Amino acid sequence: MTSSDKPENASDTAAAEPTSVAARDWATASADPQYRAAVVDLLGALAYGELAAFERLAEDAKLAPTLADKAALAKMASAEFHHFERLRDRLAEIGEEPTRAMEPFVAAYDGFHKQTAPSDWLEGLVKAYVGDSIASDFYREVAARLDSDSRNLVLAVLDDTGHGGFAVEKVRAAIDVDPRVGGRLALWARRLMGEALSQSQRVVADRDALSTMLVGGVADGFDLAEVGKMFSRITEAHTKRMAALGLAA
Amino acid sequence: MTSSDKPENASDTAAAEPTSVAARDWATASADPQYRAAVVDLLGALAYGELAAFERLAEDAKLAPTLADKAALAKMASAEFHHFERLRDRLAEIGEEPTRAMEPFVAAYDGFHKQTAPSDWLEGLVKAYVGDSIASDFYREVAARLDSDSRNLVLAVLDDTGHGGFAVEKVRAAIDVDPRVGGRLALWARRLMGEALSQSQRVVADRDALSTMLVGGVADGFDLAEVGKMFSRITEAHTKRMAALGLAA
Repeated sequence: MTSSDKPENASDTAAAEPTSVAARDWATASADPQYRAAVVDLLGALAYGELAAFERLAEDAKLAPTLADKAALAKMASAEFHHFERLRDRLAEIGEEPTRAMEPFVAAYDGFHKQTAPSDWLEGLVKAYVGDSIASDFYREVAARLDSDSRNLVLAVLDDTGHGGFAVEKVRAAIDVDPRVGGRLALWARRLMGEALSQSQRVVADRDALSTMLVGGVADGFDLAEVGKMFSRITEAHTKRMAALGLAA
Repeated sequence: MTSSDKPENASDTAAAEPTSVAARDWATASADPQYRAAVVDLLGALAYGELAAFERLAEDAKLAPTLADKAALAKMASAEFHHFERLRDRLAEIGEEPTRAMEPFVAAYDGFHKQTAPSDWLEGLVKAYVGDSIASDFYREVAARLDSDSRNLVLAVLDDTGHGGFAVEKVRAAIDVDPRVGGRLALWARRLMGEALSQSQRVVADRDALSTMLVGGVADGFDLAEVGKMFSRITEAHTKRMAALGLAA
């Protein structure tokens, strides 16, 4: 396939900046202040996301019907905390104050969790699974747009996600016992995704440098249509996962 | 000092059983069903204690005034979770169902945490520090009475405690700013210790094999006076720590 087959993307693929950054290391890439600001935003957003996820998973562990279930959710929470540590340490390593880098994203994450407090164990499980999966998708999307050092960090954290798998069998088993549960959890999953998108859009609107980088744009502006496409890809993957779980999304 | 200087302890030091178990490994020591039951109880009690501590610290992290404080408490919580994992894995390794070993202790720990939910960040810090310190004291007391394999595990977990130190400077600083805070927190620390003792005594009364081992007793009964002495030593250490922290206990 040549580039003439998809003229609508031609201007993107022709742009030199987003492709070339992947070939650079942090020392080289961060000489561009716009790129540096975007990565600091990204690390700050991911770090606070992991810390907030830790807190909420640990709280949701209280809903667990058995000690083994509680331990499984606590394990996910602990994994999120270790992701937080890596991201925070990286911020410190590049000379940024981790707290300052995280603060712009506190309201969005806290808003998300406040709006999506699970009312029972199954809702907690679905939230853990959905959150873990969306995080993986997003990490994968963003890794390709990063310098080699930042990419290695993001991939290392990504490699350690996927603890949400245990949630799948529990939710399936519950739907087998009572199919009506599936309808309720499908609505719940839709609400989770809706709230996640709404908070993400708030961040995109506020943080120009980050948004520009996410869509592989150039330094002087970002393409809202490309942001939309990224959200669409993540939503689509979510929908497929929910269907596989027996939840019509 | 010869043993004649402390005749009140002569019968204890002369008892062959408690000393000799330390020279044995698990395979040899666990041939005694009473000893085996006691260690299973101990590992179950410690495991659930760590899991419960994880949950409460994670919840108390929500009270943190800054992101750095939140991260510090989350770090303690995560460390407790890893202690839980080691203890649970050890139970599985010796052929015990971890959940069944933990269940007898759920009510005592949950009761403790329910009675001692901190109402603010400083109370949470004091609780984290007190809990961490008492756990260290108890691990140290009990290690001497265990077979070599169990002792190594307990010492390894002990070696990784002490994350509570960060609480000390925060509490001191708060008392410096407003000395009345010290009075309030001293009452709080006393309540924590009182509740811990009350729940411990419940466990001691219920679990004969465990209590017998804790005081280095023989298989056919345990010496309530020795249990009392152990509690006294731990309480005394607590009182000294609170005084050092500027809290009259």
